[in-house]
Amino acid sequence: MRQEQRQMHLGVFVLGTGNHVAGWRLPGAADSFQNLSVAQQIARTAERGLFDLLFLGDGLSADPNAHPSFTARFEPITMLAALAATTTHVGLGATASTTYAEPYTVARLFASLDHLSGGRAAWNAVTTSGGQAAANFGRQHPPHGQRYEVAEEFIDVVRGLWDCWEDDAIVADRKTGRYIDAAKVHKLHHKGRFFEVEGPLNIGRCPQGQPVILQAGASEPGQEMAARSADVVFSVVQDLDEARAAYAALKERLPRHGRDPGEVAVLPGVMPVIGRTQEEALEKLDHLQSFVNSTNALSMLSNRLGQDMSAYPMDGPVPDLPLPDTSHGFARTMLAKARREGMTLRDLYNLTAAARGHWVICGTPASIADTLEEWFLGGAADGFNILPPYFPGGFDEFVDGVVPELQRRGLFRRAYRGRKLRDHLGLSRPARQHGTPT
Amino acid sequence: MRQEQRQMHLGVFVLGTGNHVAGWRLPGAADSFQNLSVAQQIARTAERGLFDLLFLGDGLSADPNAHPSFTARFEPITMLAALAATTTHVGLGATASTTYAEPYTVARLFASLDHLSGGRAAWNAVTTSGGQAAANFGRQHPPHGQRYEVAEEFIDVVRGLWDCWEDDAIVADRKTGRYIDAAKVHKLHHKGRFFEVEGPLNIGRCPQGQPVILQAGASEPGQEMAARSADVVFSVVQDLDEARAAYAALKERLPRHGRDPGEVAVLPGVMPVIGRTQEEALEKLDHLQSFVNSTNALSMLSNRLGQDMSAYPMDGPVPDLPLPDTSHGFARTMLAKARREGMTLRDLYNLTAAARGHWVICGTPASIADTLEEWFLGGAADGFNILPPYFPGGFDEFVDGVVPELQRRGLFRRAYRGRKLRDHLGLSRPARQHGTPT
Ligand SMILES: Cc1cc2nc3c(=O)[nH]c(=O)nc-3n(C[C@H](O)[C@H](O)[C@H](O)COP(=O)(O)O)c2cc1C
Ligand SMILES: Cc1cc2nc3c(=O)[nH]c(=O)nc-3n(C[C@H](O)[C@H](O)[C@H](O)COP(=O)(O)O)c2cc1C
Repeated sequence: MRQEQRQMHLGVFVLGTGNHVAGWRLPGAADSFQNLSVAQQIARTAERGLFDLLFLGDGLSADPNAHPSFTARFEPITMLAALAATTTHVGLGATASTTYAEPYTVARLFASLDHLSGGRAAWNAVTTSGGQAAANFGRQHPPHGQRYEVAEEFIDVVRGLWDCWEDDAIVADRKTGRYIDAAKVHKLHHKGRFFEVEGPLNIGRCPQGQPVILQAGASEPGQEMAARSADVVFSVVQDLDEARAAYAALKERLPRHGRDPGEVAVLPGVMPVIGRTQEEALEKLDHLQSFVNSTNALSMLSNRLGQDMSAYPMDGPVPDLPLPDTSHGFARTMLAKARREGMTLRDLYNLTAAARGHWVICGTPASIADTLEEWFLGGAADGFNILPPYFPGGFDEFVDGVVPELQRRGLFRRAYRGRKLRDHLGLSRPARQHGTPT
Repeated sequence: MRQEQRQMHLGVFVLGTGNHVAGWRLPGAADSFQNLSVAQQIARTAERGLFDLLFLGDGLSADPNAHPSFTARFEPITMLAALAATTTHVGLGATASTTYAEPYTVARLFASLDHLSGGRAAWNAVTTSGGQAAANFGRQHPPHGQRYEVAEEFIDVVRGLWDCWEDDAIVADRKTGRYIDAAKVHKLHHKGRFFEVEGPLNIGRCPQGQPVILQAGASEPGQEMAARSADVVFSVVQDLDEARAAYAALKERLPRHGRDPGEVAVLPGVMPVIGRTQEEALEKLDHLQSFVNSTNALSMLSNRLGQDMSAYPMDGPVPDLPLPDTSHGFARTMLAKARREGMTLRDLYNLTAAARGHWVICGTPASIADTLEEWFLGGAADGFNILPPYFPGGFDEFVDGVVPELQRRGLFRRAYRGRKLRDHLGLSRPARQHGTPT
């Protein structure tokens, strides 16, 4: 018997107006991130493409100069709950902040989503890079290092809360009238540096045991957090060498946390711009780029680099900047690429406008599949987080063009094997570890 | 032309295991509040019955001795978001706490639900009566009066955030590339005693303008809050005189807040136990009561009265107790009824087990319709919040038996007139009031 080929994992990063900042301007493209029927159509396409995961980011402030889908957007967990009711297989992942939310609340929301979806929930634990959120919560934005200290404890509390109920604690015995076996519901009694949480959670153990944890921070503490707790890591990389290095660095951290490198899937983000020919793909990207408006692009670049970039000359070189307090991951990759390729600030700004610092690939379905295969087999990825530049067309092209290419090569499933996100990811249901008797 | 008869409003209070503490023990009854298909079935029935509103309460702690649906439950806003996708007309209301949540978060969640549902969201603003929540949020439970001071400001902030975006702020002009008219997105600049919130919210103005606000506190500050901000008030009353007094008292407060008495619908909660004959209905209640387990009932009664009632003799009189810090509304009604009817503690405990302090009515569809009509025409109610003792049967009996009786009498709609909750309630879309230019 032939050994089965290792399989890719695919996620789709959903922003209603498209991942490209001006994707919504293409004729036929969706132009709203407040429209359930568009979201439902994307979710159907994700299931047609047998995707592991549909992912929604989140932010806690609105800047009319930012990416349109960052400004006027559904709250992601409610949007996923709505999609849970009209999908059957695709994983449903959303961001929730460890800096501006409460662990009891976050634990409940994702546990509830896991129950509603029959075991398809995933939580992207982010520390919230932008300080603009602080003013909406009457708070000071904590510095980068402290945000991660809080985040580590936050995740522990959430995971502890998810474990308060034993799997068989709900008895619901009509005869005796016993509904809950109280001996199987445990308190958490957490008293830490940042949180005191007694528990138990007010929802039974999840279909997945615990929802899946996603992580996307690439700073030193971000990578440590990923190595300790994440099931899926979104990486931000611009070329194969960089992707290999990031992949290896993350996998090396795992054994130190008692984990096997195979337990974590690393998915670089990539925006595919697809044409019937290479030229057509490049033209399409040019067309999208011609839509870019300088206010959006400059605001997005300033955000990524953590300072106001309007002070620098646009056609001068990209200045040497320190890693910002906002996000190490994006700034490092973008500045490295700018140095490598001798970019001007305008080039970098165009890159940010396109995919917000993620990798952009132009080509035919076959050439894109070639590249993804090379990365996947070449130690740079366990799959990819796909950022369609616009919806629904840009995603249809990937699902109808690239996915069959990957399937033909034996790199991607031809059918779902299970109903839960953990099934798609090849992850086992975690045993209960936390909680002490009440 | 005959003047149209004033119409009743109907809500259904959904607890998956039934409103009766032991409703789940009836053969055929749903026995879980973590089951989406049961919730979907209830929602379909609500729409078949042309109900205004499907309502979900919430709590922030779990006590294995409490009502089963208070212990292991969906998080209500995610559950409503899931129902938004599979329903088309019924209003979707959920509780969120003004004591343990952030106004920016609550404003987003309900705005998102309003967009997802096409204008059907309602927020039940509660101060969270039980102090058990505090230990899950590393907090001290604030005293009753302070909870309401916080709540008043909280509601102002949420309503202000809902008004940050003008209706036509999202332009999405493909030609010019202008997505947002920034001049139509306003900050809130709120700096109050308890909250500092800058705004704007990161979601456009709601289909309803603002989601509907529900209120269920019956203390003096609770009623003031209702009179100032609520669109629907859930009252807790045990007989017609008391209901009339509560109705009149609330309506009298409205003009002082510049509001018309017709702008607020007062809906007493009622648990209907329905039989083909009066005897059958009484037997059914007896049967349900025979299922009551003393631990649950005692814990629920202690919760309502705000102290541990196990110290008092069960067959002795109901002691004279002061209004508790938890909830004035429930304790006052329950203690008044106990005094009026010379109840023992056991009687009161049985009443609490049945409907948690709400009014219980036994009868045939016609006799129940008679009573509801009497209350509705007699200045005691603008409609009712129906608490089926068990699901789905107890709700089907109401929708298939009592609703047609009410329709025949011209008291209840025969078709929905609109798609939004405000349409069902006869409320106009509020004009934008808050927010200052950015
Ligand atoms: C695919 C992807 C999705 C992300 N989604 C969010 C998000 O939704 N909200 C957010 O605040 N940050 C998001 N981020 C940012 C990071 O998760 C992280 O919080 C930030 O980069 C700061 O961490 P670092 O300094 O460790 O890189 C995302 C990053 C990536 C690569
Ligand atoms: C129909 C109804 C539903 C309620 N739902 C909730 C709820 O979901 N969560 C909660 O904490 N309190 C709930 N309550 C309690 C009250 O809203 C209120 O917070 C409590 O009674 C204390 O207020 P008071 O002292 O002003 O009466 C509900 C009450 C009624 C009548």
